[in-house]
Amino acid sequence: METPAIVIDRRRMRRNIASMAAVADKHGVKLRPHAKTHKIAALAHEQIAAGAAGITVAKVAEAEVMAAHGVRDIFIAYPIVVPSKIERVVALSRENRIIVGVDSLEGATALSTAAVREGVTIEARLEIDTGLKRTGVTLDEALELAKRISSLPGIVLSGIFTYKGALYQGASTLDLAAAGREEGELMASVAKQLRESGIPIVDVSVGSTPTGVYAAQVPGVTEIRPGTYIFYDAMQVKLGVCEHDDCAGRVVVTVVSKPAADLIVVDGGSKTFATDVQPNQPPLNLKGFGIIEGYPDAVLERMNEEHGMIRMPSSHTVAIGDRLTIVPNHICSTINLHNEVYVQDEDGGLERLSVLARGLLQ
Amino acid sequence: METPAIVIDRRRMRRNIASMAAVADKHGVKLRPHAKTHKIAALAHEQIAAGAAGITVAKVAEAEVMAAHGVRDIFIAYPIVVPSKIERVVALSRENRIIVGVDSLEGATALSTAAVREGVTIEARLEIDTGLKRTGVTLDEALELAKRISSLPGIVLSGIFTYKGALYQGASTLDLAAAGREEGELMASVAKQLRESGIPIVDVSVGSTPTGVYAAQVPGVTEIRPGTYIFYDAMQVKLGVCEHDDCAGRVVVTVVSKPAADLIVVDGGSKTFATDVQPNQPPLNLKGFGIIEGYPDAVLERMNEEHGMIRMPSSHTVAIGDRLTIVPNHICSTINLHNEVYVQDEDGGLERLSVLARGLLQ
Repeated sequence: METPAIVIDRRRMRRNIASMAAVADKHGVKLRPHAKTHKIAALAHEQIAAGAAGITVAKVAEAEVMAAHGVRDIFIAYPIVVPSKIERVVALSRENRIIVGVDSLEGATALSTAAVREGVTIEARLEIDTGLKRTGVTLDEALELAKRISSLPGIVLSGIFTYKGALYQGASTLDLAAAGREEGELMASVAKQLRESGIPIVDVSVGSTPTGVYAAQVPGVTEIRPGTYIFYDAMQVKLGVCEHDDCAGRVVVTVVSKPAADLIVVDGGSKTFATDVQPNQPPLNLKGFGIIEGYPDAVLERMNEEHGMIRMPSSHTVAIGDRLTIVPNHICSTINLHNEVYVQDEDGGLERLSVLARGLLQ
Repeated sequence: METPAIVIDRRRMRRNIASMAAVADKHGVKLRPHAKTHKIAALAHEQIAAGAAGITVAKVAEAEVMAAHGVRDIFIAYPIVVPSKIERVVALSRENRIIVGVDSLEGATALSTAAVREGVTIEARLEIDTGLKRTGVTLDEALELAKRISSLPGIVLSGIFTYKGALYQGASTLDLAAAGREEGELMASVAKQLRESGIPIVDVSVGSTPTGVYAAQVPGVTEIRPGTYIFYDAMQVKLGVCEHDDCAGRVVVTVVSKPAADLIVVDGGSKTFATDVQPNQPPLNLKGFGIIEGYPDAVLERMNEEHGMIRMPSSHTVAIGDRLTIVPNHICSTINLHNEVYVQDEDGGLERLSVLARGLLQ
C-alpha cells in the first residue's frame, strides 16, 4: 500500500454498524443509513445485513450505482426536479423501491408529469426544514404543500423527512439531546397535522449521526438516517458523539520533509483531506484538519494540494519516510476525494474497495 | 449533460495557453505548466504543442498517467523519499525524461541507493523555500545540502526549484510583482552560489500563475511552472491576475429549491466545489465560494455536501430547474473532485474528458 491512502478498520466499522442498528432497534425506529459517507455498495450491504431497512443517498447517480450492485430499497433524500433525472428515477423504480425527496410544487409537478406519462407511481417524501436553512419547507408551509402534492396524480406522499444535524443555522451550543428532541418533536407534530388533514403519512424520517439517537426516542419518529456513524471522524469526537477509539476511518500519510525543527510535511494535503470542516471555527473549534494519532500535541495546521504541514514538537523523533495515521475532520467528504479505500482486518490483511459512487457528474 | 458538471470553454482555455506561452517566450524562459490543475493528458499535450518544454506534476501516479499518454518530459516537483515510489520513478525514467524534487539528505540518499542498484542516473532538483514554509530548504542550508547531494552516486543535481505563490506565509499584501521579483532574485542568487561552488546548476525554476510573469523577468531564472493559468478561477480574478472573462472553467449547477425569498439552493456543494480556499479570509477576502455569473449581487454563502446555498436578492427571477454557472474559488482542487469535465466548443459542442490522474491512492 502506498500513501496517502484511506484505511478502514473492519472491526471498528462493524462495531459501529451493529451499535447504531441496536439504537434503532431499542427505540423501535427503522434505520436507513446515508450511504454518502462511504459510497460503497458492499458497505451498504453490511448495514442492511445488520438490520437497516434500506439506504439513503443524495444523488440519482448514487442510487443507480447502489441498485446496480443489488441494493433494492433506496431513498434519494434530495429534491429531484429535472426531467432527465426524474426519468432515471422512474427507470430505477421499475426494479427497486425508490423514494424521492420533494420540497416544491414545481418539483412535485415534474414528478407527477413523468409518472403519469410513464404509467408508474412515484413514492415521495416532503422535506421539512427544522433549522438548517437549506432545502425543505417551513412548518407553516408544510400542510398546504402536502395537500397540493397529494392531489397530483402519480405521486404517493408516503412520508416526511428532515436533516437538522448538530451544526444547524444559529446553533450556538452543541446540546445534541435538545437538538435531536426538537427535530423529532417538530417532525412528529407535522406528521400528526398532515394525518389529521387526511394525508396518510407513514414515514417520519430524521437525521443524523449526532442527533439520531435522541430524535429516535421521540414518539412519532419512525426512521433515522445517520451516515457518518459507520466510520465516525474528528468532528464527531469533538461533538462527543463517539470516542476516538470508535473512529474506523483514517488517512495514512508519509513524512516527506522536515523543513524546521517543529515542522514536518506529509504527503496528504487538500486533495487528500477534505477542507469543508475547517479548524478554529465556532462552535466546534477543531484543532487542525484531523487527529494525528499518537501525537496529541501535534497539529495539522495548513495544507496545500499535496502537502500537509504539521506543527510537531521537536521532542518527537519523527523521521522522513515514517508513516502517520490521521483521523480526518470529516470522513464523508474525505472519502469522496479517493477512488479507493482499504479495509483492514485484525490480522492486518487489506481489502481494496472502489468508491464507485463518487465523482459522478450527475 | 446533467448537473453538477464542470464545463471548460475551449476558446478561452486556448487563449490562456497561448498567452502564458508568449509570456515565457518574451522573457526567454522555459514554460513547464503544472498539470495538477487539469490532470488531463490531452490538455498537457495542448500546452506542449503551444511551446511548453514539458510538464510538472506533484505525484508519481500523475507522472505515470501522463507518461502512459505520451507526455515524455515530466518534473515531479515533490520530494520522493519512499523506496517503492523511487522504484516507480526509475521505471518511468527508462522511457522518459523524469526529474524529481529533493529537499533532504535522507531523500537524496534513497534516490542514490536506488539509482546505483538499478544502474541508472536520476535527475533531481533541489527545492528551496522562498517563503511558503512547506517543503524546501532555506537559503543558508542550500549550499551544504547541494554539495552533499552532488557527491552521491547516481544523482545529477541539474537544477533548483521553488514555489512561493501569492499567499506565502506572512504575506500581508498582494504585491505580486514584488513577490515574483523576490522569488526570482533569491533563486538566481542561490544558483550563482551553487555554480561558484562547482555545482553546475542548469535549471532555475519558479512558480506560479500569480508570480510567474514577474519572476520570469529576473535574470538567471530559466523556467516557470504556472498551473492555474490554463483555466484561471475566482481567486486569480481577485488577485488581479486575470479578468473574469479569462476564466475558462465553470461549474454548471441547477436550482433545486427556493426555500426563502432571498435564498436558493443548487445541486453543487462541497463535493462539487473545493473548499480549500474559503470566503472572507484575509488577504483575499473572497465573497462566497465562487463567482455566480450574471448575478454579481448573489453569494454562494454556505455549502453542505450536495447543497449550495446562494443568497440571491429576491428581485431576480430565478426558478427551480434553472441552471447557473459559477467560477469556483480554486479550479485545481475543484476539478480534482470530478471524474470528468466537458470541453465546450464555440458551436456549443461538448467533448467529455476523463480526469484520469485524479483520486489516485499514491
